[in-house]
Amino acid sequence: MFEGPVQDLIDELGRLPGIGPKSAQRIAFHLLATEPADIGRLQDVLQKVRDGVRFCEVCGNVAETERCRYCSDARRDATLLCVVEEPKDVLAVERTREFRGRYHVLGGALDPLGGIGPDQLRIRQLVSRIGGTGPAEDEAQIAEIIIATDPNTEGEADRKSAV
Amino acid sequence: MFEGPVQDLIDELGRLPGIGPKSAQRIAFHLLATEPADIGRLQDVLQKVRDGVRFCEVCGNVAETERCRYCSDARRDATLLCVVEEPKDVLAVERTREFRGRYHVLGGALDPLGGIGPDQLRIRQLVSRIGGTGPAEDEAQIAEIIIATDPNTEGEADRKSAV
Repeated sequence: MFEGPVQDLIDELGRLPGIGPKSAQRIAFHLLATEPADIGRLQDVLQKVRDGVRFCEVCGNVAETERCRYCSDARRDATLLCVVEEPKDVLAVERTREFRGRYHVLGGALDPLGGIGPDQLRIRQLVSRIGGTGPAEDEAQIAEIIIATDPNTEGEADRKSAV
Repeated sequence: MFEGPVQDLIDELGRLPGIGPKSAQRIAFHLLATEPADIGRLQDVLQKVRDGVRFCEVCGNVAETERCRYCSDARRDATLLCVVEEPKDVLAVERTREFRGRYHVLGGALDPLGGIGPDQLRIRQLVSRIGGTGPAEDEAQIAEIIIATDPNTEGEADRKSAV
């Protein structure tokens, strides 16, 4: 155990996912040797995230304004909807450069043992969009829905629940 | 690329050592789902580290007050001195539970190509301590010095320079 704020920093870093005690120590000593301005930048973005990150009112993706860049892009095909679990999955689909439709981010996967039921996900909003009563103006025309949840038990449950 | 502060957070986390783009993304989304109070704790310790971490005036280890717990512990043998590169090495030696003397932390290893010469390390302070002119009152009596620098080229150079 180190003394003072160094150990506190190691403890806090060690709580982050995928960071073990050794990595936490290495990062802490890196930050000790870092310019205060660099630590300041990290503090600033943490503050912004703490103040609240915005999510798109239509699809649930992370967004800078009320709507994310995909929902506010009129050139994208509004008849095609791709349903994913998390914002990172939107990025993964985008990287394929094959899909030019819109997205719907569920915000996770069904996990009854973990307390995640349909009400914890954005499934009601998905139904509204399909029914044409969602917040976007051009969604009554959805013609095809691609369920792109993860290929595991939870993702399969999402797929069945959505179908 | 995500929009807004999420991407900024991923970028900042990705600058930390040992955190690649995927880990940065995982940590960022973990923080998004975290209670604001937990992010606050991380911000607080970063502020404390930014305000300055104290180093022991005698040995150079991280410390809560002017002297670290080893230098202020009168029960430890002041005739034995173990010279290490970094504060983490003090912990490593302590974990062996075999050493009951004092420490001297050099603050790195000689690395002329990296611009680290004897003046960038706490070698002058080591000489003062051995000569009995260091800040601790009981150090004229040092009888044995253990050089515990890393077993690599830089550590060997430290050892020779100290000898």
